[in-house]
Amino acid sequence: MIFDRILEEKLKRAIRDIPDYPKPGIVFKDITPVLASPELMQETAHALERQARSFRPDAIAAVEARGFIFGSILARQLNCPFIPVRKPGKLPYRTVQESYTLEYGTASVEIHEDAIRPGWRVLIHDDLLATGGTADAAAMLVQRLNGVVAGFSFMINLEFLPGEQNLKNKYHIQPAYLVNFNR
Amino acid sequence: MIFDRILEEKLKRAIRDIPDYPKPGIVFKDITPVLASPELMQETAHALERQARSFRPDAIAAVEARGFIFGSILARQLNCPFIPVRKPGKLPYRTVQESYTLEYGTASVEIHEDAIRPGWRVLIHDDLLATGGTADAAAMLVQRLNGVVAGFSFMINLEFLPGEQNLKNKYHIQPAYLVNFNR
Repeated sequence: MIFDRILEEKLKRAIRDIPDYPKPGIVFKDITPVLASPELMQETAHALERQARSFRPDAIAAVEARGFIFGSILARQLNCPFIPVRKPGKLPYRTVQESYTLEYGTASVEIHEDAIRPGWRVLIHDDLLATGGTADAAAMLVQRLNGVVAGFSFMINLEFLPGEQNLKNKYHIQPAYLVNFNR
Repeated sequence: MIFDRILEEKLKRAIRDIPDYPKPGIVFKDITPVLASPELMQETAHALERQARSFRPDAIAAVEARGFIFGSILARQLNCPFIPVRKPGKLPYRTVQESYTLEYGTASVEIHEDAIRPGWRVLIHDDLLATGGTADAAAMLVQRLNGVVAGFSFMINLEFLPGEQNLKNKYHIQPAYLVNFNR
């Protein structure tokens, strides 16, 4: 994986810890200070683009809502189709749906059934890799529509959670990210 | 307003009508075929960028989730901060909130209270202008944080709904868009 230590340090300084959000005991990684800095946004976009190209994707599938922010930039810079992965009921046309396990209960994501041409290599992008449940569900949707999972792209990896290992074990692909948090 | 008739025709052909979504009697404008075409996505991004530059913004405020798709591209191309405008409870830090009227009841949007520096000219971007309620609420948030509403940017205007007129009357700004639907 292409990894830039200097950018990682800049992102670590910019990303803001929000304790007890969205619920008690969780420390949320707030990326809005990165988005607020044109310099950091350019560097982040460049680094994500470089990683994304290494997967040679035909299309970018991005998970709403934060995944749309850099996902669309990736699609534009790589001249690829942009495929929105959304929560149930948010896509207007016919969809396919996959569920995944949360700490308590389950959640689902959908894509349009006409979003992927058979054989397309699809890169899955989201802002953050935690347990990997959402990315896994998105990857299963790609496969159900006869696409190929080209890779996984994130801004942030939480290395104290099993998402990276889960995706590696199941898809035999090293997920790409720009910054690794150990707490 | 900068307006490209050839691009408008291309977008009209690509955007898909979904009858009775999200509820009976509403015809939804589905932009996913635009996002699926790299050529249309590039042309749309270029045209939105050209319009956006004419407002000379210091920052781009984009409404979740579809507004994030071209909003982040605008922020990157204009080298501006990207400010997410989100539904209540979705932003992790301290927020300010504005409500607006829907056909039945009300809805609200929020931005982070530290998102805007006083005096910044902020361009508000979303995918579609209908009644203008969301864009108006976003503009009120900009003003509450002592920003200046620089302009409004959309891919689609629904000219049979009063959004364009409402925003013109209140902010004395002609909203910019790429395609105008009369039904």
